[in-house]
Amino acid sequence: MIINPDFSQILQAAERIKPYAHRTPVLTSESLNRLTEARVMMKCENLQKVGAFKFRGATNAVFALSESEAARGVATHSSGNHAQALALAARLRGIPAYIVMPDNAPAVKKAAVRDYGGRITYCEPNQAARKTTLNRILKETGATFVHPYDHALVIAGQGTAALELLEDHPDLDVIIAPIGGGGLLSGTALAANGISPGVRVIGAEPEMADDAYRSMQQGSIVPSLNPQTIADGLLTSLGELTFPLIRDYIEQIVTVSEQSIVEAMRFIWERTKLIIEPSAAVPIGLLFAKKINLSGLKVGVIISGGNVDLDRLPW
Amino acid sequence: MIINPDFSQILQAAERIKPYAHRTPVLTSESLNRLTEARVMMKCENLQKVGAFKFRGATNAVFALSESEAARGVATHSSGNHAQALALAARLRGIPAYIVMPDNAPAVKKAAVRDYGGRITYCEPNQAARKTTLNRILKETGATFVHPYDHALVIAGQGTAALELLEDHPDLDVIIAPIGGGGLLSGTALAANGISPGVRVIGAEPEMADDAYRSMQQGSIVPSLNPQTIADGLLTSLGELTFPLIRDYIEQIVTVSEQSIVEAMRFIWERTKLIIEPSAAVPIGLLFAKKINLSGLKVGVIISGGNVDLDRLPW
Repeated sequence: MIINPDFSQILQAAERIKPYAHRTPVLTSESLNRLTEARVMMKCENLQKVGAFKFRGATNAVFALSESEAARGVATHSSGNHAQALALAARLRGIPAYIVMPDNAPAVKKAAVRDYGGRITYCEPNQAARKTTLNRILKETGATFVHPYDHALVIAGQGTAALELLEDHPDLDVIIAPIGGGGLLSGTALAANGISPGVRVIGAEPEMADDAYRSMQQGSIVPSLNPQTIADGLLTSLGELTFPLIRDYIEQIVTVSEQSIVEAMRFIWERTKLIIEPSAAVPIGLLFAKKINLSGLKVGVIISGGNVDLDRLPW
Repeated sequence: MIINPDFSQILQAAERIKPYAHRTPVLTSESLNRLTEARVMMKCENLQKVGAFKFRGATNAVFALSESEAARGVATHSSGNHAQALALAARLRGIPAYIVMPDNAPAVKKAAVRDYGGRITYCEPNQAARKTTLNRILKETGATFVHPYDHALVIAGQGTAALELLEDHPDLDVIIAPIGGGGLLSGTALAANGISPGVRVIGAEPEMADDAYRSMQQGSIVPSLNPQTIADGLLTSLGELTFPLIRDYIEQIVTVSEQSIVEAMRFIWERTKLIIEPSAAVPIGLLFAKKINLSGLKVGVIISGGNVDLDRLPW
């Protein structure tokens, strides 16, 4: 059963996750404003628990479960921030989280999920193995599948970041968020449309993983096939829930070069002292590249996360 | 003429710098709390303008000048955060900042001061040359000398960080700040004593630059002679103003090993996504090392700055 998320679900999510999630700060930088010629408000989800906005959606999904559902646990496939987020959210509710990960995932990511109490099952690094393994676990445990993005409660949870941002700054002209599977961007769009319908919402996508951009051009989901980008949080394809929301609510998707992403990431580290991951640098790269004119506008940016391997920096 | 700073000067400083300085966020981390067995509130001065608390003191000193004093500019000797802070504060007032720096200062620091509009005069890298050069400039320009820490307005400005922290969290048991020349720590102590006299104030100092610790033992200023620590913001000796304030208001100074400093720095980067410089990691290292028992207490920490060379990380 697919439930379409709407604004009321974002308001519910905000209440539900409040005891668990940080209300992250909105930070500004004069040098960033000068270079982008805009007034940029950074909603710092890198400072969220587990270092990413993903904690919002996972927590909303976990705490929306009935007692009997919850008792059987939650499950997902992910080697990234969603896996950590779901593991921590489940631990906070005191229930098991079953995480399916490819056996070649980086050791640091496996350790992070284990640290949060996630129960990992490894599979071969391909889509079919991932699906089979997850289905087996769902059958064996009765756990609830929490998709990384194509899930109404997850989308609603991700939308709470933009909700808070617009509560703090109701006069934003534009909000920019990165797009991978579209959970964050569609939640952002629903929140913006609900709270201040005039605000423009723009997606920022790596040029080297431009499936969402092409999906908008084509009017149907174009799958993301083996994309090669440093923004490793944005490799996935749009989903059945996220695609129509993005199609209907997003002004446009703008693509960003790898060079712009790395330059933006380093700029933010150096000037704002915030550790952001490459995916989070994509909207900043968009602002620097000035493919679209946002001059003089008040621009909210969702800084999506800060999980990077400090021993492998891209400079 | 030496003016002793007091609490009323901190309140004045807070009003004076308000239009220019960020009110920095106070952030928390559950993993930090777990490891330190305390409830740690990080006052994030790494997110302050120029990436350090130094902007507060410099701005207070610059904007306290009369019109005629201001017109002649300000001057200082520093190759660190104070130089950048004074340059930016002066630019905001539209007056010149003359900065004396050793000619062997890192290129990145020279560039930062120039970027903020500072007028640099290089000197040989020794105390005598620095003094002679500064005196010559003061004579030629009539500029006002703003000492990096032994200056009442600077100390009062630095105290505004603790003032804000205690406004946000009046129930702190302890505040910890790093100590180099003592400007931050003495301002912190004055603020704490003024707003909530019961709060304990502790200084965190590198073992390898333990002149303040030894000064407290001895009851007089022990100079810091060629200290070798990664915490390059904490190399200086106590001053005539800062020493008595620290002697009278600080509970104790605790020293921290180089290894603890580096481990603490990396921990904060990885877990909280905040870029902090080694000097800022000293209080966190103190908490990790557990030389003193702060178990269960609510502990404010002044995260002093985030200026590091991203191409030379200590791991």
